[in-house]
Amino acid sequence: MASQAAIGFTRGAPSLDIIDTEGLVEATRLAFAEDPAGTTAYGTAVGYAPLRKWIAEQHGVPVEQVLVTNGSMQADAFLFEQLVSPGDAVIVEAPTYDRTLLNLRQRGAEVHPIALHEDGIDVDAVQALLESGVRPKLAHIIPNFQNPAGYTLSAPKRARLLALASQYGFTLFEDDPYFSIRFEGEQLPTMLSQDTSGSVVYASSFSKTVCPGIRVGYLVGPAEVIAGIAKIATTTYISPNMVSQSIVNQFCRSGRLDKSIDTVRAALRQRKDALVAALERELPKAEYTAPQGGYFMWVRLPGVSIDALADAAAEHGVAFVKGADFLLEGGDDSVRLAYSGLSAEEIDEGVTRLAAAVRSLDA
Amino acid sequence: MASQAAIGFTRGAPSLDIIDTEGLVEATRLAFAEDPAGTTAYGTAVGYAPLRKWIAEQHGVPVEQVLVTNGSMQADAFLFEQLVSPGDAVIVEAPTYDRTLLNLRQRGAEVHPIALHEDGIDVDAVQALLESGVRPKLAHIIPNFQNPAGYTLSAPKRARLLALASQYGFTLFEDDPYFSIRFEGEQLPTMLSQDTSGSVVYASSFSKTVCPGIRVGYLVGPAEVIAGIAKIATTTYISPNMVSQSIVNQFCRSGRLDKSIDTVRAALRQRKDALVAALERELPKAEYTAPQGGYFMWVRLPGVSIDALADAAAEHGVAFVKGADFLLEGGDDSVRLAYSGLSAEEIDEGVTRLAAAVRSLDA
Repeated sequence: MASQAAIGFTRGAPSLDIIDTEGLVEATRLAFAEDPAGTTAYGTAVGYAPLRKWIAEQHGVPVEQVLVTNGSMQADAFLFEQLVSPGDAVIVEAPTYDRTLLNLRQRGAEVHPIALHEDGIDVDAVQALLESGVRPKLAHIIPNFQNPAGYTLSAPKRARLLALASQYGFTLFEDDPYFSIRFEGEQLPTMLSQDTSGSVVYASSFSKTVCPGIRVGYLVGPAEVIAGIAKIATTTYISPNMVSQSIVNQFCRSGRLDKSIDTVRAALRQRKDALVAALERELPKAEYTAPQGGYFMWVRLPGVSIDALADAAAEHGVAFVKGADFLLEGGDDSVRLAYSGLSAEEIDEGVTRLAAAVRSLDA
Repeated sequence: MASQAAIGFTRGAPSLDIIDTEGLVEATRLAFAEDPAGTTAYGTAVGYAPLRKWIAEQHGVPVEQVLVTNGSMQADAFLFEQLVSPGDAVIVEAPTYDRTLLNLRQRGAEVHPIALHEDGIDVDAVQALLESGVRPKLAHIIPNFQNPAGYTLSAPKRARLLALASQYGFTLFEDDPYFSIRFEGEQLPTMLSQDTSGSVVYASSFSKTVCPGIRVGYLVGPAEVIAGIAKIATTTYISPNMVSQSIVNQFCRSGRLDKSIDTVRAALRQRKDALVAALERELPKAEYTAPQGGYFMWVRLPGVSIDALADAAAEHGVAFVKGADFLLEGGDDSVRLAYSGLSAEEIDEGVTRLAAAVRSLDA
């Protein structure tokens, strides 16, 4: 079986067929034709001005509250550099995005993981932590279709988190790259849009709606936080990529973005459906909550050792990311399945192989 | 006079007329047509593989020695993060690029400025510093058409620096963005190409040969240093901009790069000639060494207070960067004139205004 190509539920990335490459070429032509000087020259650290303006309009904020970066990971890194010093307390979801966890630990932050439920982080536990005297600098929250769990933060929990951030004076880092790719259910308002106390710094990107290789992300936050981050960005790279940001600007303003989002949503819904159907058929004991958007599903396989399964899965030509990678401890019976980059057929076959790998452990 | 548009000798950037925007659009078309998957997807932190390979071939090194970044400033920041800890001694040229100086000081480095002569850094002074017991982690050298001075490091000094780096075990950071844009005289071999002890880390970029807004730079160095930096880059941004790097790859491989370099060289030579002619005519007491390439000329105006001149220049509609900005101390009678972004006519008029500003100080 080792000769067949492995099916990878590993990487949170779209497949090529749902990327509008033709639209990107056309957007590039427009970028160089309509603003050759702004597209080719050094910009400033806040990003390409017309795109910054477009983003500000989307969020209904002044441009001074927006900074456009080389991808949202870079935005996270800047924000942490600005706000988090060694020894500072930081709240994260458990499980959470492995790279965020790594970044925060490398900065020497005191990381407080709080359990993530199907309706988002356990806000009672956050409140208890705060009441115990812990004073975090920030709480990192992925509100929609969380990576790795696929869960979405409920409206009441959003309100409570905002109130706690205001009361205890910490930054609510709303890390929201999947917002636009909801394929079912009703969109919930961002915490940013409900923030009256200047507590929220919001991050998103065009990786999921244009393409990852374009590396354009952004932050929206209080003007003074953004100004501080702009200084760090200037020292780091003078200006982010103007060519990419000018391409994205044309892509957004020409209506291509909306079409691309429609394409992505339809594909992701189909892929999620294929995953759920295959799991019901092949692994009826698996436990999960089907996401309403995004790239990921968290799957618990009760009684299965995921470490052992990883080796068996490799032999059966299928791969996943271990749940434990997204936690400081625990997650030993869970996996993250990314369905974003696979066709419905590949997903079906991948789950069939995964089930065979599970069965092989009992043999 | 305040109503006329100011002529700025300030920013080290090319004018739009010497950028091949048509070639960039064509390179983009090729990038998406020939490698849509690699161009649109996340890459890895070492950069877009075909461009990495092209750069490796240009320098005659294995690809493991190359890392392609979002501009060379970002490359510098990674290198400093990898090699320089607070308190570490670092040698810099005096004067040197202001952002490098700022980055090193922000990292808490112990900066040792060594005088820059017309044939490059004072190597006797470097040797004396080493013999005095100082053990630098690295020496930052801009060998060709230095920013801000426009000077070029001589071949014998290159050899001596290499020997000292090998003997004393420090990294020679050869920061060489202007290498390709020599418009007069003979090209000198890089220190990288003569390095037999693994002492050199070389940086360059496509900002001066393609365009700054594309933000593609790179490092070449010992494989273990590059591997370490790749880890930092992964944590910072997962992957640099694949779209930009794929465009640059097509631009290089289609022969557009060579044509662009010819255009840039011809324009820069003409601009340098215009600057020299205007200075001879308008400011005969000015002292300078005309560069053989690059963007910058360092001009000493004996007896002139540059602080006072800056205000007068603003009134006369001309701007420059003060020499003192590129030094920890001194430079009070010198300015950096960037001629890269101005036409010959603008340069002539700008120097005429500058001379009027100088004369106004005596009045």
